[in-house]
Amino acid sequence: MLVHGKHFRTIWLDDADPTQVCVIDQRSLPFEWRVETLQSVSDAARAIREMHVRGAPLIGVTAAFGIYLATLESTSNAFLQEAGSWLKQTRPTAVDLFYAVDRSMRAVLAVQEESARVRIARQTALEMAEESVEHCRKIGEHGLSLIRAISQKKNGKAVNILTHCNAGWLACIDYGTALAPVYQAWSEGIPLHVWVDETRPRNQGARLTAFELEQQGIPHTVIVDNAGGHLMQQGMVDLVLVGSDRTTRNGDVANKIGTYLKALAAYDNQVPFYVALPGTSIDPALTDGVRTIPVERRGEEEVKAIEGWDGRKRREVQLTPAGSPALNFGFDITPARFVTGLITERGVCSASENGILGLFPEWKRDI
Amino acid sequence: MLVHGKHFRTIWLDDADPTQVCVIDQRSLPFEWRVETLQSVSDAARAIREMHVRGAPLIGVTAAFGIYLATLESTSNAFLQEAGSWLKQTRPTAVDLFYAVDRSMRAVLAVQEESARVRIARQTALEMAEESVEHCRKIGEHGLSLIRAISQKKNGKAVNILTHCNAGWLACIDYGTALAPVYQAWSEGIPLHVWVDETRPRNQGARLTAFELEQQGIPHTVIVDNAGGHLMQQGMVDLVLVGSDRTTRNGDVANKIGTYLKALAAYDNQVPFYVALPGTSIDPALTDGVRTIPVERRGEEEVKAIEGWDGRKRREVQLTPAGSPALNFGFDITPARFVTGLITERGVCSASENGILGLFPEWKRDI
Repeated sequence: MLVHGKHFRTIWLDDADPTQVCVIDQRSLPFEWRVETLQSVSDAARAIREMHVRGAPLIGVTAAFGIYLATLESTSNAFLQEAGSWLKQTRPTAVDLFYAVDRSMRAVLAVQEESARVRIARQTALEMAEESVEHCRKIGEHGLSLIRAISQKKNGKAVNILTHCNAGWLACIDYGTALAPVYQAWSEGIPLHVWVDETRPRNQGARLTAFELEQQGIPHTVIVDNAGGHLMQQGMVDLVLVGSDRTTRNGDVANKIGTYLKALAAYDNQVPFYVALPGTSIDPALTDGVRTIPVERRGEEEVKAIEGWDGRKRREVQLTPAGSPALNFGFDITPARFVTGLITERGVCSASENGILGLFPEWKRDI
Repeated sequence: MLVHGKHFRTIWLDDADPTQVCVIDQRSLPFEWRVETLQSVSDAARAIREMHVRGAPLIGVTAAFGIYLATLESTSNAFLQEAGSWLKQTRPTAVDLFYAVDRSMRAVLAVQEESARVRIARQTALEMAEESVEHCRKIGEHGLSLIRAISQKKNGKAVNILTHCNAGWLACIDYGTALAPVYQAWSEGIPLHVWVDETRPRNQGARLTAFELEQQGIPHTVIVDNAGGHLMQQGMVDLVLVGSDRTTRNGDVANKIGTYLKALAAYDNQVPFYVALPGTSIDPALTDGVRTIPVERRGEEEVKAIEGWDGRKRREVQLTPAGSPALNFGFDITPARFVTGLITERGVCSASENGILGLFPEWKRDI
């Protein structure tokens, strides 16, 4: 998508030196634009763990590029297995990460020759990036029809879409998941407006989603996470679109903390609540999200302090009394009964085992 | 309640010069402790409008002291009526404000003599302060029995109470509304722990509620507004206690934006959700909160920026791209069907017209 009018993806091989992987350091957005090069698997692991990159699809692809960088350091089985294990330990919730590492490792370990391992690792990472772009493009197409239908019902008055966190192109390789339908609808000339939840504690909405929409010139308004219920009660939201870090076989959705609260409000006000996700983020082994999806617990400093722009540089300020502890869960689980539907690269389905297996029949055996 | 071990109320007449009214400038908490003197009705109006003081009961009493300060400037009917009208325009949602101004004006205008007007205005303000303290004390007693019952069911394991915004002593004159039962339970030795919603955009939870609890030595943990639903799903909340800025005749509750989302989560997880309020914040003329309670819309800068402590002073940092607009509603309405009960100075009742009129029969005629 566009940044200062120029097209970017979130991760790419350096043109001049394809042994280096370029990513956008998302920690500095929207205040500063920084491209960073990853030169080793530990660079890649750090970029994931410290959230230079974030978003389930981008985490997965970054991990695949991490395996590629690992093969440049050593192609021994022992080193690669250790590299895979490092990468898997960076973040606990997104299933894409485990999927990406396993897929890349399988492909690499299937060949013995050193240069073949390097080539296969690079090729797998590039393939996964392309697949993600293609999945997001298709999610956009399937979601577009939902937005178009609402637009027609409103006789062309702007469709108000609420989103939580960032499930845009910055969370993926391009287009995004939840925002892909927004970008497609906008490019087709459908009038729309996006309510952007700021998404404390890390403010991915206020920082990243707002940045994305501003850069594409799409009308949007930032709101605090507390506001969505009121907006829905007052008829100011036509559709909620969010992403997912992991979705169970029966349609329970793990996504950024606070998603569940918006799902409850949407349900109470009969606002359609859709989750956009690539099939790779479905975990066919799980059937009870609330009890079984591990939810990452992050440091309390993310709650006790916040980073913003002081006019000259990024600066952190404390928000709480020094003596007050804080607790910081990264995700929550929205039970399937509150989800109107899932938008996947293969189409839209109900948030249920039947719906999911209808689109992904290959998982019938995976119980 | 205690601040640095010394007892304070939120508003009082200056000992040395009772023509001055002292308040705590709550904008600087928890980082700095500042007492401010109000010397005119316009000082009082500004303190309310700019939120040096906040919280429905304290706003009401500050307005009553504002009328007293007005009588020191002039006791003419014209000036006092103008003063009352200024005060009423400071904040639109809290019904206590209108009630306090009307009550004080009625008392003052009922006498003619200048010094009598001054005396009556001062006396009315002091009476209203004492009444608020007494109401809060009684709310604490009635709420205590709810906490005690939960504590017994948990065999003395800590009762986990979630609260939103600040409905503690800083929002009142002393004790608080939602926090009064917490203070009573703690002083009786009941083990408890409070989850403190930070309450964006103004962070009254992270700043004021956390400060209050820390100063009384009560175990508490600050969480982002997004977290409460997850905590309730995981069985980590036994009781939700919030305040109210205005409650309709049938039990719909206007409170800080985001309260409705917590009520939905409590309902979905069968966590009792109680609203603590003095009778003065019930508006017997209204029966449909979502449609009729005016909700204050505040400036977008409260969303786009945040104030914190940079280590040396309070400092504001920007949170959003400069080109992204924001929208900022101060309150939302929780429909009565999600409210387990109301805790008032006259006892606990259901959030319904029957429940409310059972405790406040004098409003039967006020439809």
